[in-house]
Amino acid sequence: MGLIDFKHFVNELATVSGQAILPFFRTTIAAEDKSRGGAFDPVTEADRASEAAMRQLIKRTFPTHGIIGEEFGSEGTDAEYVWVLDPIDGTRAFIAGLPTWGTLIGLSRNGQPVFGMMHQPFTGERFFGDEGGATYQGHGGERKLMTRRCASLKDAVISTTSPKLFAGEELRAYDRVESVARLARYGCDCYAYCMLAAGHIDLVVESGLKPYDIVALIPIIEGAGGIVTAWDGGSAAEGGRIVAAGDRRVHAAAVELLSR
Amino acid sequence: MGLIDFKHFVNELATVSGQAILPFFRTTIAAEDKSRGGAFDPVTEADRASEAAMRQLIKRTFPTHGIIGEEFGSEGTDAEYVWVLDPIDGTRAFIAGLPTWGTLIGLSRNGQPVFGMMHQPFTGERFFGDEGGATYQGHGGERKLMTRRCASLKDAVISTTSPKLFAGEELRAYDRVESVARLARYGCDCYAYCMLAAGHIDLVVESGLKPYDIVALIPIIEGAGGIVTAWDGGSAAEGGRIVAAGDRRVHAAAVELLSR
Repeated sequence: MGLIDFKHFVNELATVSGQAILPFFRTTIAAEDKSRGGAFDPVTEADRASEAAMRQLIKRTFPTHGIIGEEFGSEGTDAEYVWVLDPIDGTRAFIAGLPTWGTLIGLSRNGQPVFGMMHQPFTGERFFGDEGGATYQGHGGERKLMTRRCASLKDAVISTTSPKLFAGEELRAYDRVESVARLARYGCDCYAYCMLAAGHIDLVVESGLKPYDIVALIPIIEGAGGIVTAWDGGSAAEGGRIVAAGDRRVHAAAVELLSR
Repeated sequence: MGLIDFKHFVNELATVSGQAILPFFRTTIAAEDKSRGGAFDPVTEADRASEAAMRQLIKRTFPTHGIIGEEFGSEGTDAEYVWVLDPIDGTRAFIAGLPTWGTLIGLSRNGQPVFGMMHQPFTGERFFGDEGGATYQGHGGERKLMTRRCASLKDAVISTTSPKLFAGEELRAYDRVESVARLARYGCDCYAYCMLAAGHIDLVVESGLKPYDIVALIPIIEGAGGIVTAWDGGSAAEGGRIVAAGDRRVHAAAVELLSR
């Protein structure tokens, strides 16, 4: 089976996932009602409905493939192909009604991320990457994703989920980077990496990521011409401390400050 | 002329504004090209094109009305009706390609905000408020906006543009609020107040706002059943330090901590 079939299949996964999630987005639930012991939590319900739908479609279509998911754990992880799923990356944005969350669908072959999609069903945007490049589907149809040039960290627009997620030495390392950059944005999770792939953000720095937070994004970033590694320059595929850049010069400058 | 005509007219303003802005959104410009002395700055171009289009339409339709705008200053501010315009509230989100900015169109009568719209042309969302209530137009058509109940600050989802915009006593006051809240989100500007009106966020705390950052939002928040004041409980219409809540109990708790 060729690579082109995976692209079609990933689009199908994104569609069933979006259909499962959207009915739960912006469902108003009063905080006080919830604390009264109500078991209904829209983000958990949406997470589980989406991952269940995607797992069912994967198992029916590719019964020999493994799956790693945020909600329902791992199975068959020694298979040649392993799917890596995060139905709602950015649950805090989702809870607050903001559109800066997304569904992450990654595919690893022999441990290497080879396909990735970020799907934002509310805005109708899909960001897709593989060895052949990266593409955007959404407003204005489909177009190629390309990171932009940025010679120096002082010109860079940077992003992290929250500066309050760092502590101690990690916080000092992050602050060394942010203090040099032109502009910092917070709170975007996967959406920030996709804006990097699209050439609007130059650098994303995070820590404490799980593999399912980053595997799907690696082919998108690399397919768009960017670079994503651990803070020490090693592989990003295991999660942990991640630094992604659109331009290798900015990546090198950030790695130097983060690993000092 | 009745109130209903203003609603139609504000929708027209939002449409011409969106048409002026969208061609500049997600225009990739390399930071290094810009620093080479190029004069093209997409967000400034979009800001100016939008405000010019709105001013032209206002002057043609209501020549006796005053206008306060972020880009082109004030005129006729002693008129009975004064329009208060911010073409792109959330320029840093706009620069980073994120959809959490909006166009603010407010109308004051004898100094009191009576109509307000927040328009997000990329997602196709409009939030509108007047003395009769507040409405949402977007995904799924039109519906009434209503804040949600939230009994206590510890259950509240809160938002501010950036915790780094506060310093000194203001920072300590903000931190007293955030440390009690359930969840904090950053970086949303006007979008956060609209999520409050829609019942997804319970509290927004900011400082350093201009009148054109808040006037359009007041009728939306109040029309949805919320409350928005200065930190000391006074009028929000002049900008400055602003606290908005969906439930008066959360507002009272926040004002108590902010003014301590």
